[in-house]
Amino acid sequence: MLYAENLSVNQSNHLTIGRHDAVALARRFGTPLYVLDEDRMRLNCRRYRQTLAGAYPGEGLVLYASKALCTLHTARVAAEEGLGADAVSGGEIYTLLKAGFPMEKVFFHGNNKTPEEIALAMDSGVGYFVVDNREELRRINDLAGQRGRIQPILFRVKPGVDCHTHEYIKTGQIDSKFGVALETGEALEIHREAASLPHVRVEGVHCHIGSQIFETEPFCEAVRRMTGLMAQLKSELGMDTRILNLGGGFGIPYEPGDDPPPLAHYLRSVTSVLRQETERLGLPLPQLCFEPGRALVGDAGVTLYTVGSVKTIPGVRTYVAVDGGMADNPRYILYGAKHPALVANRAGDAPEGPVTIAGKCCESGDLIAEHTPLQAVYPGDILAVLVTGAYNYSMASNYNRLPRPAMVALQGEEARLIVRRETYEDLISHDVL
Amino acid sequence: MLYAENLSVNQSNHLTIGRHDAVALARRFGTPLYVLDEDRMRLNCRRYRQTLAGAYPGEGLVLYASKALCTLHTARVAAEEGLGADAVSGGEIYTLLKAGFPMEKVFFHGNNKTPEEIALAMDSGVGYFVVDNREELRRINDLAGQRGRIQPILFRVKPGVDCHTHEYIKTGQIDSKFGVALETGEALEIHREAASLPHVRVEGVHCHIGSQIFETEPFCEAVRRMTGLMAQLKSELGMDTRILNLGGGFGIPYEPGDDPPPLAHYLRSVTSVLRQETERLGLPLPQLCFEPGRALVGDAGVTLYTVGSVKTIPGVRTYVAVDGGMADNPRYILYGAKHPALVANRAGDAPEGPVTIAGKCCESGDLIAEHTPLQAVYPGDILAVLVTGAYNYSMASNYNRLPRPAMVALQGEEARLIVRRETYEDLISHDVL
Repeated sequence: MLYAENLSVNQSNHLTIGRHDAVALARRFGTPLYVLDEDRMRLNCRRYRQTLAGAYPGEGLVLYASKALCTLHTARVAAEEGLGADAVSGGEIYTLLKAGFPMEKVFFHGNNKTPEEIALAMDSGVGYFVVDNREELRRINDLAGQRGRIQPILFRVKPGVDCHTHEYIKTGQIDSKFGVALETGEALEIHREAASLPHVRVEGVHCHIGSQIFETEPFCEAVRRMTGLMAQLKSELGMDTRILNLGGGFGIPYEPGDDPPPLAHYLRSVTSVLRQETERLGLPLPQLCFEPGRALVGDAGVTLYTVGSVKTIPGVRTYVAVDGGMADNPRYILYGAKHPALVANRAGDAPEGPVTIAGKCCESGDLIAEHTPLQAVYPGDILAVLVTGAYNYSMASNYNRLPRPAMVALQGEEARLIVRRETYEDLISHDVL
Repeated sequence: MLYAENLSVNQSNHLTIGRHDAVALARRFGTPLYVLDEDRMRLNCRRYRQTLAGAYPGEGLVLYASKALCTLHTARVAAEEGLGADAVSGGEIYTLLKAGFPMEKVFFHGNNKTPEEIALAMDSGVGYFVVDNREELRRINDLAGQRGRIQPILFRVKPGVDCHTHEYIKTGQIDSKFGVALETGEALEIHREAASLPHVRVEGVHCHIGSQIFETEPFCEAVRRMTGLMAQLKSELGMDTRILNLGGGFGIPYEPGDDPPPLAHYLRSVTSVLRQETERLGLPLPQLCFEPGRALVGDAGVTLYTVGSVKTIPGVRTYVAVDGGMADNPRYILYGAKHPALVANRAGDAPEGPVTIAGKCCESGDLIAEHTPLQAVYPGDILAVLVTGAYNYSMASNYNRLPRPAMVALQGEEARLIVRRETYEDLISHDVL
């Protein structure tokens, strides 16, 4: 009923997140406030690792997709839980480095790595580069050569798998800015070129077919095609690829109708196909990597706002205005994403008629949710928006010169500030007059 | 041909912005780089002021809409050009204050001003509050009372005017989170309440019907309705409203097909209706305010990128990947906005077949433009994206932990850094480990 097992209602009729009263958190740290249930994030990490270990007899590695939520603290949590990480920029690599992350377990992604980023990644000891294109391959070979080393790489391959998800987050098909296509022979060609270069060594193959996918079959199909490629690389180029990185994209529920298959089912289906195919093709079981981000932190996040006004337009709708909006959560205006919401100080009450939750930005599209059921609500109430752990803080802006919110992590009885709230002074700190 | 009169091509076949070689700017300041042609911004400000002065015999005031681009430097430029300003948050007020802006010429907007923001605005000497709703009215009255003063206010009125623009940026209709509706009597009622409160004084009326509107008639219709309201306030409440603030929303061209009427035509149409209506209704000519943002800085901005890779997918399309993207310019993924682009180091060449300009974010939707004509392009080229002065820097995020670009202002021969580039250290500066 409250969407996730770590959420409940206490005797004051307040929402609780883990062992914490959400209203008390809002009072103590102010609003808007990102709350990260660290216990939940850790549980998600363990479940993923354990489920993979249970489903796959080969070596498995779960890589935390930093782009979902990248802070020093979350990087450290991921490291403590035994995960590797995927990073997509110099900024993410820098964050992982400063968090003391084991850099040999980092995979460096991105469709346009700059020479500076490549150098930073190499000098930080990043384990693997996931190479996007030919220009980048040559750049990496050159920069590794300058350092007198051989850089382990994988190519990002477009397996040509179609899947049902939002147009913006569908990436495995041929018409994508990412990677090299399997079906046109482009993937084979770039591996051939890599084989001829002295300072790179292909260690595996990578694909990522999209985000928020609720079906297992597209992933199984990706496994069939990627193992086919691995066999082809072996037979045609004599290339042993010991890693199969299947990327991320396994969906999580945002609203009651969302019903992804259980993780165990997903991983069992994928690994079962992998075992069949490798056996059929005479390949050893590869190290199997996944890159969940949303699945590890999405439901660990709750955003708390203070309601400023409630505006009922008769016969039209009711707007509930909060003290944040698209600047801290642009997912509705970007994707029409549906985040459940409830009045934290009246959490046990039955929801009433649907409302629209509006942000405070000077823009009509600045909405958090439309037509969403909500308890009776009044100015001064604390509104909780759920499942905001992924792609909220990481996509936040200072639009309208709104300072970005603080973030607190909940671990047991402890609530600890992990990202300080921005000040007005911060907003002008880069301005030169 | 180059979309704006301040852009040209020099003997090196490079794009020039004002008197500056774009390629030299990219070399000197690095990419991605926001370039603000300050001379162009100043010219736009003067044209707006002078055109209004020529079209309207009453008092006129042009208010710079800070949300389009809010920095210390642009605030100072607006002040030097004799403009007032509209601000929509504490952060914008703080910026104006630190820039030495004449705060009595500031109008404070927003659908959900927090008590802290209201207090900051009052203590900063902000001239006018544009009040959104009843709760806010009472809050302002209380806080002004605590300070022993009477706060000049205007209400934000929804005049019920429909106009053709993007759904997200259409704000004058009754179904909007902003303001009070005229047609339901809500506007009259809230003015009645204001008349009874001791610490606010209604000085005028405000409306804003939307953004990027290319027709004059919706604005004329807004004038008819708003002057009707002013007459009603006079007759029913004995209230003299001496300011008519018509907000912003007058469109600017982004692509060749965009053809807004000339500013003079727009302002003459609106002021002509205003003169007729005030005469008919027996009202004095009000102080007439406009709030252009995009129209003052939009075409003064150019973003310079370095091309990282060019990926042609046979039979599908060509992706040109640059070293920025949705993090510094989210307008394509948000609105499908069309920004023209050209290869700055080959600017005089004829464009070739259409390409897609992709950013470097790890997201398929991270595009700057699709199907846009572009000169022959190779890795290492400098790509210029035009008309990026408004709603680019102001909406920028650190998505994928990309540092936000620097901004330089061009005045005559001088190119001066006005916003410093973010560093990796900045990205973790609020993290607590």
